Amino acid sequence: MEINNPETVREVEEAFERYEIALMDNNVTVLDDSFWNNPRTIRYGGAENLYGYAAIQKFRAARTGGRFTRRIDRLVITTYGKDFATASLHHHPANAPGKVGRQMQTWVKMPDGWRIVAAHVSTIDDPD
Amino acid sequence: MEINNPETVREVEEAFERYEIALMDNNVTVLDDSFWNNPRTIRYGGAENLYGYAAIQKFRAARTGGRFTRRIDRLVITTYGKDFATASLHHHPANAPGKVGRQMQTWVKMPDGWRIVAAHVSTIDDPD
Repeated sequence: MEINNPETVREVEEAFERYEIALMDNNVTVLDDSFWNNPRTIRYGGAENLYGYAAIQKFRAARTGGRFTRRIDRLVITTYGKDFATASLHHHPANAPGKVGRQMQTWVKMPDGWRIVAAHVSTIDDPD
Repeated sequence: MEINNPETVREVEEAFERYEIALMDNNVTVLDDSFWNNPRTIRYGGAENLYGYAAIQKFRAARTGGRFTRRIDRLVITTYGKDFATASLHHHPANAPGKVGRQMQTWVKMPDGWRIVAAHVSTIDDPD
Protein backbone atom coordinates (compact mmCIF):
# COMPACT_ATOMS: atom_id res chain seq x y z
CA MET A 1 0.00 0.00 0.00
CA GLU A 2 1.42 3.32 -1.03
CA ILE A 3 1.64 5.91 1.74
CA ASN A 4 1.37 9.57 0.74
CA ASN A 5 1.02 9.27 -3.01
CA PRO A 6 1.63 12.90 -4.02
CA GLU A 7 -1.50 13.24 -6.17
CA THR A 8 -3.67 11.69 -3.44
CA VAL A 9 -2.16 13.96 -0.79
CA ARG A 10 -2.90 16.95 -3.01
CA GLU A 11 -6.56 15.91 -3.34
CA VAL A 12 -6.98 15.48 0.41
CA GLU A 13 -5.22 18.75 1.20
CA GLU A 14 -7.67 20.47 -1.12
CA ALA A 15 -10.71 18.84 0.55
CA PHE A 16 -9.27 19.57 3.98
CA GLU A 17 -8.62 23.23 3.15
CA ARG A 18 -12.17 23.63 1.84
CA TYR A 19 -13.48 22.22 5.14
CA GLU A 20 -11.22 24.46 7.23
CA ILE A 21 -12.34 27.63 5.49
CA ALA A 22 -15.97 26.59 5.96
CA LEU A 23 -15.31 25.88 9.65
CA MET A 24 -13.81 29.32 10.23
CA ASP A 25 -16.74 30.98 8.42
CA ASN A 26 -19.42 28.63 9.77
CA ASN A 27 -20.43 27.84 6.19
CA VAL A 28 -22.96 25.12 6.98
CA THR A 29 -23.53 24.06 3.37
CA VAL A 30 -19.88 23.24 2.82
CA LEU A 31 -19.51 21.69 6.29
CA ASP A 32 -22.45 19.37 5.58
CA ASP A 33 -21.20 18.59 2.10
CA SER A 34 -17.81 17.55 3.51
CA PHE A 35 -19.32 14.70 5.53
CA TRP A 36 -20.39 11.35 4.13
CA ASN A 37 -24.17 11.38 3.76
CA ASN A 38 -24.76 8.10 5.54
CA PRO A 39 -26.24 6.88 8.85
CA ARG A 40 -22.82 5.40 9.75
CA THR A 41 -21.01 8.73 9.78
CA ILE A 42 -19.92 9.77 13.28
CA ARG A 43 -18.79 13.05 14.79
CA TYR A 44 -17.70 13.26 18.42
CA GLY A 45 -17.88 16.99 19.11
CA GLY A 46 -16.80 19.31 21.89
CA ALA A 47 -19.83 18.49 24.02
CA GLU A 48 -21.89 15.93 22.08
CA ASN A 49 -21.76 12.57 20.35
CA LEU A 50 -23.39 12.64 16.92
CA TYR A 51 -24.29 9.37 15.19
CA GLY A 52 -25.34 9.60 11.56
CA TYR A 53 -25.29 12.33 8.95
CA ALA A 54 -28.76 13.60 9.94
CA ALA A 55 -27.63 14.25 13.53
CA ILE A 56 -24.52 16.08 12.32
CA GLN A 57 -26.56 18.19 9.92
CA LYS A 58 -29.04 19.08 12.69
CA PHE A 59 -26.20 20.11 14.99
CA ARG A 60 -24.65 22.37 12.33
CA ALA A 61 -27.98 24.01 11.57
CA ALA A 62 -28.45 24.88 15.25
CA ARG A 63 -24.96 26.29 15.72
CA THR A 64 -24.91 30.05 15.91
CA GLY A 65 -22.68 31.97 13.53
CA GLY A 66 -19.57 33.96 14.22
CA ARG A 67 -16.03 33.26 13.20
CA PHE A 68 -13.89 30.71 14.97
CA THR A 69 -10.20 31.58 15.23
CA ARG A 70 -7.25 29.53 16.35
CA ARG A 71 -3.53 29.00 15.86
CA ILE A 72 -2.77 25.61 14.31
CA ASP A 73 0.30 24.11 16.00
CA ARG A 74 0.66 20.95 13.99
CA LEU A 75 -1.20 19.36 11.10
CA VAL A 76 -0.52 15.87 9.73
CA ILE A 77 -2.32 14.54 6.66
CA THR A 78 -1.48 10.97 5.71
CA THR A 79 -2.91 9.00 2.79
CA TYR A 80 -3.07 5.19 2.56
CA GLY A 81 -3.49 3.94 -1.01
CA LYS A 82 -5.59 6.22 -3.20
CA ASP A 83 -8.91 6.29 -1.33
CA PHE A 84 -8.16 6.71 2.38
CA ALA A 85 -6.66 9.41 4.52
CA THR A 86 -6.43 10.79 8.03
CA ALA A 87 -6.06 14.46 8.95
CA SER A 88 -5.01 15.33 12.51
CA LEU A 89 -4.20 18.65 14.03
CA HIS A 90 -3.84 20.30 17.37
CA HIS A 91 -4.30 23.99 17.89
CA HIS A 92 -4.63 26.79 20.46
CA PRO A 93 -8.18 28.17 20.35
CA ALA A 94 -8.25 31.97 20.63
CA ASN A 95 -11.17 31.87 23.08
CA ALA A 96 -9.66 29.34 25.53
CA PRO A 97 -6.22 30.32 26.87
CA GLY A 98 -4.27 27.42 28.42
CA LYS A 99 -6.21 24.87 26.39
CA VAL A 100 -5.26 22.78 23.38
CA GLY A 101 -7.80 21.60 20.84
CA ARG A 102 -7.43 18.39 18.86
CA GLN A 103 -9.22 17.60 15.61
CA MET A 104 -8.99 14.23 13.91
CA GLN A 105 -10.77 13.21 10.71
CA THR A 106 -10.91 10.07 8.61
CA TRP A 107 -11.49 10.77 4.92
CA VAL A 108 -12.64 8.29 2.26
CA LYS A 109 -12.80 8.90 -1.49
CA MET A 110 -16.42 8.16 -2.29
CA PRO A 111 -17.86 8.07 -5.84
CA ASP A 112 -18.74 11.77 -5.50
CA GLY A 113 -15.44 12.85 -3.94
CA TRP A 114 -13.56 12.91 -0.64
CA ARG A 115 -15.79 12.81 2.40
CA ILE A 116 -15.27 12.69 6.18
CA VAL A 117 -16.61 9.39 7.53
CA ALA A 118 -15.54 9.87 11.16
CA ALA A 119 -14.43 12.94 13.11
CA HIS A 120 -13.51 13.66 16.70
CA VAL A 121 -12.74 17.01 18.30
CA SER A 122 -11.79 17.60 21.93
CA THR A 123 -10.05 20.04 24.22
CA ILE A 124 -7.55 19.35 26.99
CA ASP A 125 -5.35 21.44 29.28
CA ASP A 126 -2.22 22.49 27.42
CA PRO A 127 0.34 19.78 28.30
CA ASP A 128 3.28 21.95 27.20
CA MET B 1 -16.45 0.75 -2.73
CA GLU B 2 -17.97 -1.95 -0.61
CA ILE B 3 -19.04 -0.86 2.87
CA ASN B 4 -19.00 -3.52 5.59
CA ASN B 5 -17.87 -6.54 3.63
CA PRO B 6 -18.68 -9.31 6.17
CA GLU B 7 -15.23 -10.93 6.08
CA THR B 8 -13.49 -7.57 6.45
CA VAL B 9 -15.76 -6.60 9.36
CA ARG B 10 -14.95 -9.90 11.02
CA GLU B 11 -11.20 -9.24 10.70
CA VAL B 12 -11.49 -5.75 12.18
CA GLU B 13 -13.74 -6.94 15.02
CA GLU B 14 -11.09 -9.48 15.89
CA ALA B 15 -8.29 -6.88 15.89
CA PHE B 16 -10.47 -4.47 17.85
CA GLU B 17 -11.35 -7.09 20.45
CA ARG B 18 -7.70 -7.99 20.90
CA TYR B 19 -6.92 -4.33 21.52
CA GLU B 20 -9.81 -3.90 23.96
CA ILE B 21 -8.73 -6.85 26.09
CA ALA B 22 -5.18 -5.49 26.14
CA LEU B 23 -6.48 -2.05 27.14
CA MET B 24 -8.44 -3.46 30.07
CA ASP B 25 -5.44 -5.48 31.22
CA ASN B 26 -2.82 -2.83 30.37
CA ASN B 27 -1.03 -5.40 28.21
CA VAL B 28 1.60 -3.06 26.78
CA THR B 29 3.00 -5.57 24.29
CA VAL B 30 -0.36 -6.05 22.58
CA LEU B 31 -1.23 -2.35 22.80
CA ASP B 32 2.04 -1.44 21.09
CA ASP B 33 1.62 -4.19 18.51
CA SER B 34 -1.84 -2.87 17.59
CA PHE B 35 -0.44 0.46 16.42
CA TRP B 36 1.28 1.05 13.09
CA ASN B 37 5.02 1.17 13.70
CA ASN B 38 5.61 4.41 11.84
CA PRO B 39 6.54 8.03 12.65
CA ARG B 40 3.21 9.15 11.12
CA THR B 41 1.05 7.30 13.64
CA ILE B 42 -0.83 9.66 15.94
CA ARG B 43 -2.60 9.18 19.26
CA TYR B 44 -4.42 12.05 20.93
CA GLY B 45 -4.81 10.82 24.49
CA GLY B 46 -6.71 11.90 27.58
CA ALA B 47 -4.10 14.51 28.49
CA GLU B 48 -1.40 14.37 25.80
CA ASN B 49 -0.79 14.55 22.06
CA LEU B 50 1.48 11.77 20.83
CA TYR B 51 3.08 12.01 17.39
CA GLY B 52 4.81 8.90 16.10
CA TYR B 53 4.95 5.29 17.19
CA ALA B 54 7.97 5.92 19.44
CA ALA B 55 6.08 8.54 21.47
CA ILE B 56 3.09 6.22 21.85
CA GLN B 57 5.32 3.35 22.94
CA LYS B 58 7.07 5.58 25.50
CA PHE B 59 3.72 6.69 26.91
CA ARG B 60 2.49 3.12 27.27
CA ALA B 61 5.68 2.01 29.00
CA ALA B 62 5.30 4.80 31.57
CA ARG B 63 1.64 4.08 32.32
CA THR B 64 1.12 2.34 35.62
CA GLY B 65 -0.81 -0.91 35.69
CA GLY B 66 -4.21 -1.66 37.10
CA ARG B 67 -7.37 -2.62 35.32
CA PHE B 68 -9.50 -0.08 33.54
CA THR B 69 -13.24 -0.71 33.64
CA ARG B 70 -16.10 0.92 31.80
CA ARG B 71 -19.53 0.35 30.37
CA ILE B 72 -19.59 0.61 26.59
CA ASP B 73 -22.73 2.45 25.48
CA ARG B 74 -22.31 2.26 21.74
CA LEU B 75 -19.73 0.80 19.39
CA VAL B 76 -19.70 1.28 15.63
CA ILE B 77 -17.19 -0.48 13.40
CA THR B 78 -17.39 0.40 9.71
CA THR B 79 -15.18 -0.95 6.93
CA TYR B 80 -14.55 0.77 3.58
CA GLY B 81 -13.27 -1.62 0.94
CA LYS B 82 -11.03 -4.39 2.28
CA ASP B 83 -8.19 -2.44 3.87
CA PHE B 84 -9.68 0.44 5.78
CA ALA B 85 -11.92 0.78 8.84
CA THR B 86 -13.02 3.06 11.64
CA ALA B 87 -13.99 1.97 15.16
CA SER B 88 -15.82 4.47 17.35
CA LEU B 89 -17.31 4.02 20.78
CA HIS B 90 -18.52 6.03 23.69
CA HIS B 91 -18.61 4.69 27.22
CA HIS B 92 -19.13 5.52 30.87
CA PRO B 93 -15.83 5.16 32.73
CA ALA B 94 -16.27 3.52 36.13
CA ASN B 95 -13.92 6.01 37.79
CA ALA B 96 -15.60 9.20 36.49
CA PRO B 97 -19.32 9.45 37.25
CA GLY B 98 -21.17 11.98 35.10
CA LYS B 99 -18.56 11.75 32.36
CA VAL B 100 -18.63 10.11 28.95
CA GLY B 101 -15.51 8.82 27.24
CA ARG B 102 -15.11 8.67 23.48
CA GLN B 103 -12.62 6.49 21.62
CA MET B 104 -12.11 6.70 17.87
CA GLN B 105 -9.62 4.67 15.87
CA THR B 106 -8.69 4.44 12.20
CA TRP B 107 -7.47 0.99 11.19
CA VAL B 108 -5.53 0.08 8.03
CA LYS B 109 -4.69 -3.41 6.82
CA MET B 110 -0.92 -3.30 6.52
CA PRO B 111 1.20 -6.15 5.05
CA ASP B 112 1.54 -7.59 8.57
CA GLY B 113 -2.10 -7.18 9.56
CA TRP B 114 -4.60 -4.61 10.79
CA ARG B 115 -3.02 -1.67 12.60
CA ILE B 116 -4.28 1.57 14.18
CA VAL B 117 -2.85 4.51 12.26
CA ALA B 118 -4.68 7.26 14.16
CA ALA B 119 -6.50 7.29 17.50
CA HIS B 120 -8.21 9.90 19.62
CA VAL B 121 -9.67 9.52 23.10
CA SER B 122 -11.38 12.22 25.12
CA THR B 123 -13.83 12.78 27.96
CA ILE B 124 -16.75 15.20 28.16
CA ASP B 125 -19.59 15.86 30.59
CA ASP B 126 -22.39 13.39 29.98
CA PRO B 127 -24.73 15.17 27.55
CA ASP B 128 -27.62 12.80 28.30
